[in-house]
Amino acid sequence: MKKDVNNVQIAYIGGGSRGWAWGLMSDLANEGRMCGKVKLYDIDAQAAKANEVIGNKLQERDDVKSKWQYEAVQSLEEALKGADFVVISILPGTFKEMASDVHTPEKYGIYQAVGDTVGPGGIVRALRTIPMYIDIAEAIKTYAPKAWVINYTNPMTICTAVLYRVFPEIKAVGNCHEVFSTQRLLSNAYADIMACEVPAREDIKVNVFGINHFTWIDKASYEDVDLLPIYKKFVDKYKETGHFGGEKSPGLNNYFKSGQKVKFDLFDRYGIIAAAGDRHLAEFCPGKWYLKSPETVKEWGFSLTPVSWRVEHRDELLEKSEKYVSGEMVFELKETGEEGVKQMVALLGIEPLRTNCNLPNAGQIENLPLGAVVETNALFSEDSVEAISAGSLPASIHALTIPHIDHQQLVIDAVFEKDLNKAYIAFSADPLVTTDLVDSRACFDEMIENTKDWLSFI
Amino acid sequence: MKKDVNNVQIAYIGGGSRGWAWGLMSDLANEGRMCGKVKLYDIDAQAAKANEVIGNKLQERDDVKSKWQYEAVQSLEEALKGADFVVISILPGTFKEMASDVHTPEKYGIYQAVGDTVGPGGIVRALRTIPMYIDIAEAIKTYAPKAWVINYTNPMTICTAVLYRVFPEIKAVGNCHEVFSTQRLLSNAYADIMACEVPAREDIKVNVFGINHFTWIDKASYEDVDLLPIYKKFVDKYKETGHFGGEKSPGLNNYFKSGQKVKFDLFDRYGIIAAAGDRHLAEFCPGKWYLKSPETVKEWGFSLTPVSWRVEHRDELLEKSEKYVSGEMVFELKETGEEGVKQMVALLGIEPLRTNCNLPNAGQIENLPLGAVVETNALFSEDSVEAISAGSLPASIHALTIPHIDHQQLVIDAVFEKDLNKAYIAFSADPLVTTDLVDSRACFDEMIENTKDWLSFI
Amino acid sequence: MKKDVNNVQIAYIGGGSRGWAWGLMSDLANEGRMCGKVKLYDIDAQAAKANEVIGNKLQERDDVKSKWQYEAVQSLEEALKGADFVVISILPGTFKEMASDVHTPEKYGIYQAVGDTVGPGGIVRALRTIPMYIDIAEAIKTYAPKAWVINYTNPMTICTAVLYRVFPEIKAVGNCHEVFSTQRLLSNAYADIMACEVPAREDIKVNVFGINHFTWIDKASYEDVDLLPIYKKFVDKYKETGHFGGEKSPGLNNYFKSGQKVKFDLFDRYGIIAAAGDRHLAEFCPGKWYLKSPETVKEWGFSLTPVSWRVEHRDELLEKSEKYVSGEMVFELKETGEEGVKQMVALLGIEPLRTNCNLPNAGQIENLPLGAVVETNALFSEDSVEAISAGSLPASIHALTIPHIDHQQLVIDAVFEKDLNKAYIAFSADPLVTTDLVDSRACFDEMIENTKDWLSFI
Amino acid sequence: MKKDVNNVQIAYIGGGSRGWAWGLMSDLANEGRMCGKVKLYDIDAQAAKANEVIGNKLQERDDVKSKWQYEAVQSLEEALKGADFVVISILPGTFKEMASDVHTPEKYGIYQAVGDTVGPGGIVRALRTIPMYIDIAEAIKTYAPKAWVINYTNPMTICTAVLYRVFPEIKAVGNCHEVFSTQRLLSNAYADIMACEVPAREDIKVNVFGINHFTWIDKASYEDVDLLPIYKKFVDKYKETGHFGGEKSPGLNNYFKSGQKVKFDLFDRYGIIAAAGDRHLAEFCPGKWYLKSPETVKEWGFSLTPVSWRVEHRDELLEKSEKYVSGEMVFELKETGEEGVKQMVALLGIEPLRTNCNLPNAGQIENLPLGAVVETNALFSEDSVEAISAGSLPASIHALTIPHIDHQQLVIDAVFEKDLNKAYIAFSADPLVTTDLVDSRACFDEMIENTKDWLSFI
Repeated sequence: MKKDVNNVQIAYIGGGSRGWAWGLMSDLANEGRMCGKVKLYDIDAQAAKANEVIGNKLQERDDVKSKWQYEAVQSLEEALKGADFVVISILPGTFKEMASDVHTPEKYGIYQAVGDTVGPGGIVRALRTIPMYIDIAEAIKTYAPKAWVINYTNPMTICTAVLYRVFPEIKAVGNCHEVFSTQRLLSNAYADIMACEVPAREDIKVNVFGINHFTWIDKASYEDVDLLPIYKKFVDKYKETGHFGGEKSPGLNNYFKSGQKVKFDLFDRYGIIAAAGDRHLAEFCPGKWYLKSPETVKEWGFSLTPVSWRVEHRDELLEKSEKYVSGEMVFELKETGEEGVKQMVALLGIEPLRTNCNLPNAGQIENLPLGAVVETNALFSEDSVEAISAGSLPASIHALTIPHIDHQQLVIDAVFEKDLNKAYIAFSADPLVTTDLVDSRACFDEMIENTKDWLSFI
Repeated sequence: MKKDVNNVQIAYIGGGSRGWAWGLMSDLANEGRMCGKVKLYDIDAQAAKANEVIGNKLQERDDVKSKWQYEAVQSLEEALKGADFVVISILPGTFKEMASDVHTPEKYGIYQAVGDTVGPGGIVRALRTIPMYIDIAEAIKTYAPKAWVINYTNPMTICTAVLYRVFPEIKAVGNCHEVFSTQRLLSNAYADIMACEVPAREDIKVNVFGINHFTWIDKASYEDVDLLPIYKKFVDKYKETGHFGGEKSPGLNNYFKSGQKVKFDLFDRYGIIAAAGDRHLAEFCPGKWYLKSPETVKEWGFSLTPVSWRVEHRDELLEKSEKYVSGEMVFELKETGEEGVKQMVALLGIEPLRTNCNLPNAGQIENLPLGAVVETNALFSEDSVEAISAGSLPASIHALTIPHIDHQQLVIDAVFEKDLNKAYIAFSADPLVTTDLVDSRACFDEMIENTKDWLSFI
Repeated sequence: MKKDVNNVQIAYIGGGSRGWAWGLMSDLANEGRMCGKVKLYDIDAQAAKANEVIGNKLQERDDVKSKWQYEAVQSLEEALKGADFVVISILPGTFKEMASDVHTPEKYGIYQAVGDTVGPGGIVRALRTIPMYIDIAEAIKTYAPKAWVINYTNPMTICTAVLYRVFPEIKAVGNCHEVFSTQRLLSNAYADIMACEVPAREDIKVNVFGINHFTWIDKASYEDVDLLPIYKKFVDKYKETGHFGGEKSPGLNNYFKSGQKVKFDLFDRYGIIAAAGDRHLAEFCPGKWYLKSPETVKEWGFSLTPVSWRVEHRDELLEKSEKYVSGEMVFELKETGEEGVKQMVALLGIEPLRTNCNLPNAGQIENLPLGAVVETNALFSEDSVEAISAGSLPASIHALTIPHIDHQQLVIDAVFEKDLNKAYIAFSADPLVTTDLVDSRACFDEMIENTKDWLSFI
Repeated sequence: MKKDVNNVQIAYIGGGSRGWAWGLMSDLANEGRMCGKVKLYDIDAQAAKANEVIGNKLQERDDVKSKWQYEAVQSLEEALKGADFVVISILPGTFKEMASDVHTPEKYGIYQAVGDTVGPGGIVRALRTIPMYIDIAEAIKTYAPKAWVINYTNPMTICTAVLYRVFPEIKAVGNCHEVFSTQRLLSNAYADIMACEVPAREDIKVNVFGINHFTWIDKASYEDVDLLPIYKKFVDKYKETGHFGGEKSPGLNNYFKSGQKVKFDLFDRYGIIAAAGDRHLAEFCPGKWYLKSPETVKEWGFSLTPVSWRVEHRDELLEKSEKYVSGEMVFELKETGEEGVKQMVALLGIEPLRTNCNLPNAGQIENLPLGAVVETNALFSEDSVEAISAGSLPASIHALTIPHIDHQQLVIDAVFEKDLNKAYIAFSADPLVTTDLVDSRACFDEMIENTKDWLSFI
């Protein structure tokens, strides 16, 4: 009667990915309590096929704790039929459009560290992504309405919101690892201040609330120790110099490094802990605070990730992929630090999990609008995800958060109502857009032009 | 740094009790992961002293998993100072007042199965209890502001609400085992319909919402089986005859037996599962439904608990107590089915627990007023209780629930504002009060007269 | 550019009526600031035709202040096309069904003074009415989407709610004169206690809130005199004997008389002024309070209106109609005390009006659900009706009100979802239904059977 | 019984003022339906005394419609005792502090057109003003708890909020004429587009919502003409050139002139009508939009008001005052365009008035926080002000509004909690503060230093 944990079926949308898909392979192989099949669907069919080969090779190895069969499929329908879980991790558009998202605004003096969540880049990326998510949500509604859906694509809030808007009964969560890094930072803070071992990040208990990439922690403890006074000491110690290296991020290279100075500054002023990477946090704040110029960014101890690096990195990964396929290289199993697989384990009833995720607000954050997608802790257990009541955001943070929630709504409406002006309203009032109106209009128009192939709705 | 689990201190207010206190002794002795000291405070100092003796004898026995020291103390202050946990389980007033609560209304044709939560008995009992809880809350604020407070006294909702009204920062939960019995019923339903073993009640997963003793379950599962269709079959099978004996209640005698016919009828009509004992559920509904007369009660398969039985039972317990003290009888360890000790274990960080409890609504039930004490699941973990988002009550149940919430507020206000009329308003509009206004006034006045020694505020 | 006040077009749905339609004729004839045409639509085409004749005769008379042309039409479409105003006042079903609504429950010991709003009669009447209102709303949406719609049909709340549910952009209000009578009572109270002239009822300023027929006044003044202490004295003076005759109701006969003792009792206990006729108020309260038996009703100084009286009265009116048509009798112009025509005058921009009406809650009552149809004051002015913020209901009245709001929702859902069980849920938990469940089921089934010709949806 | 309209008593706090006080004298003298006494209280006793003389001279003139006695008093107590109305119009601090409010930020590249509402100037001014309003509210509570209080001081929202925070039962409104100017603009738009006479501004009906100085109109009509399409044509016609001169503002000089281009731009993008002067609107928007530099301001057709002009203007007024007192000049009665006196007339029961004002939100704006002071229409009538339900702000405007509401709360809390950091949080995140954090801190500190004499709480 109970779901057969030896016959779990996962649909991977964006299954040709060389980052998240390989991570999933690792995590599945490292988890001994379930096995089954992964169907890989990607508009880049060749990439999915390569991952099929790479994934299936793992079955023959001794160092895996479970065997999974991988199969590249040709359609969403094929992928979804019979799925217990749907993982979505797609690149909306190509690096060409992403380059425009990130770098076109620079002409107007607007710098973005990531450009995929809010700000000019996040908004334009959302416009491309929403139509894709409408299609995905409709396919899930048709072919896998009972499946649990785990989204990794950014802009997270908007992707998750679209899934629920199209198919309100969907069982979907949005996953993000940014809070984990903050837990790791708290571990390090504890060890640093208490002069002791670094606790495991899973043992750092936090109350999380906010919206994705702009989440906050107002209560944190390790065992029965309140971590807020400890973090305060830690912040005081490192706010000038930054604290590097402590975070064992899965970080790919220097662009992802940070001295946490943005986080420290926000703590200093707001009194609670900002719980995302500095690169993301900075993008939610007024543009002159942390992203005024490349120099400012440097002073604050983080980096702007150029899309050129992503292109190069993609080429490296492509090469790696070919070597994995040919057998020239052996796929390396690692700890990804992601929790998607742990969530599956929980949803199958094997072991419950309390972790943060993105869900429509049904009251879990008292003073954010009902229905808006928010990030809090939730309890994952057999066939169930339950949001945990997280309280009210302080007025100071509420003030920074609500405009983004309203803007996300406007951007979604822009697509559903085919009214680009709504997107421009969000764009021009985004805190990163520190230009005058002439420039914000020009920048918006240029960015839309650059991405127009993906905006069939206009 | 971590709280010393070998040195846990519990304050027991009402520590002379022969029911709940003995239960706690059993549960503590059966739990091997913590030990410490229990301070017993009771206005019946002799009873507390007897429990000191009984409790301390356990230390010498081999069948206990942990050693606890018991000490009867003379004041709230003594009990509370240094406490990690405060357990409150008091009898507000004596059986004389309780007899009036339960039986005076019978003269007016109003029958109550319990008379301690809502209805005439619940309201008048609340009037006696609230002043005591004001004192207790103030003492906790003064002497043990950081302690976790577990309340067992009825009326649960009102007691918990008063604790928070007096001391908003209190860390208090209200505990009730009624949902557990419903989980047991679901276990039995599963076994009966599926013709298999009875699952453990802890493995029956439920979404709980409502107010104490009038809680509801709209989602229930065992492993990945949806229990609602199974319960429907079970209800259809037994709704005529009742289902007796299935529930392994810790029930004391026949007065506590029930054929679950009230629960079955409510399911039949409302489509979701009422999650409290029939004796309690009946009291929240219009009086003519299940409590029209003793005959009606019999037809519905439950009983009215006479206070005379409580008096006799008390005498038996008193005798038992003396024998325990003298050593003539040996205290028997049993499984009480309560979760207070499991909650302490969770709050100490030993093992988390997802269970139902009563807390002020901070959004966990979307369509009940913020601040009203409600019952949902919560996650207990180290030094933390987090309510779990439970959704919105259906309109049909909302209609039955809101008047009780408003009335509970009026009864509390009646004491704080020294305005008995507010209590009468609640009384006269209570659904059990099916008399005309002349009788409801007479009944109220008579009951107030009977309990006036405890109403110093009027 | 401005709307031509000499060419106003009114669609009257239920235009064969001999009560409301004649009232409208009077009111229009007495209002000199506008004229135009009234299209009369009725499923009883003959009745509409008779009213056409009666109405048109008025044009020839000297005592009218304005000329109106009346025309009986054959379809909703004809009536609505070009309408500036739509008046709806229909009898849903016939007196045969109404007799069942009112008198079938008596077999089960349930007495109703009116039986058209809540209680068994109100609920079953609603089931008949809702499908008609769905049709009307759709016709308005199609043929007269910009017209102002004034509803007089009961159950008022449900009729108004259905109009908005089908056509959310509708410009509709629900009108009720019950508050006016309460203002008249306050005038009398003022004159009685102050020993002075009776002020005009329009000069009694009130803050109104609640739901139709269960409205309340928490602030009342005449000039700058606070009427609450005056009303208190008045209540104290007359609560034993009742206060008859003071109210210059447009009342038709003794069945509509009342000594206001229900109102006085509610004031005594709740502290604010119940603002509807005792016959209506009684039906919202627990059945044993004021409607326990015909004797109780008599003691409380009001009457049960038998449908037989309505039948006889109808026959008289029919005879009168024939005489009006034939010219044997001359139509008598009177002050109806209604405000529909004053509202039209306001909506045309001639003279603003602050008066009570029924509208979906957009915050005007802080603690009732958004979207529920509620009654408060509103400001009528040119092409606009704006609800006036009325505050929060006290907990005591909130407790009595919310179940009706939930039940009204359930009854509407029952029709839209074709699920009679939802209606029974409302029925069985209605405070007038003081029977056990066996009887409430039997009563419901019998009433449904009696009205089933009108329930095409089941 | 009715309040004696011939014996009305007004307390004027800030009664030495030469702007608002003279306006009040004019308006009172022009209103024939009431007379009485005005008590002038000012910390500048001499100025109050001068106004006493000026005011009393009016009594002897023939061109006044009513006689008022003016009396300068020495204390709040004297002013308030017996008052029917309290008018508050004070200058919080001196022009020295105001110069810092407005011009210190210019060193940091922040330009403010007014500097008294939001932005650096508004926030620092609020810090000075709040302690004064705490004192005033306490005095009103003590000496004139039943009086109607009309506030004219800025920052309006914060002043009104403090009155209600200290004395929740206060009968206070905040008055602002900005919406009137927008009505005048709509009159002009109507005349311009329809090529007809300019309608009276009072005949332009508007639905108003938002917060003071950032109010919006989503519905506007003249007679039965929808003004939104007309305004759209008007905006299209003048958005490039600006529309000068049409507005018959009571404007003092060129600094108050505007071509309405900010308003036109906001309409163009947001689709509804911004309803305050461009100088104010600009300050609520991102700083780079309309206040990037003095040149930008000029391009947008409005001006920055230098405090030096206010100083000069004050000197002129002082001279004028002396001449009025000495009789060298004769006080000139004029139409001020303010509505305070009309409000008094309405509150005395003489003639009701529907107009905009500032009140705590009790639901009149559905999607702004309850309790926040908001601006909507209200109905003024005898001893009553009732807010009119105004609907929900569109998401686009909600996004711009909420941060200001949160910041206003933070600034108030900063004073009540003696925690300047809360004020800095509001300051640094204000949309006008387009500097980096170093500069915003420096600017804040400098401004605080400049005003510290008035901040006794730090």
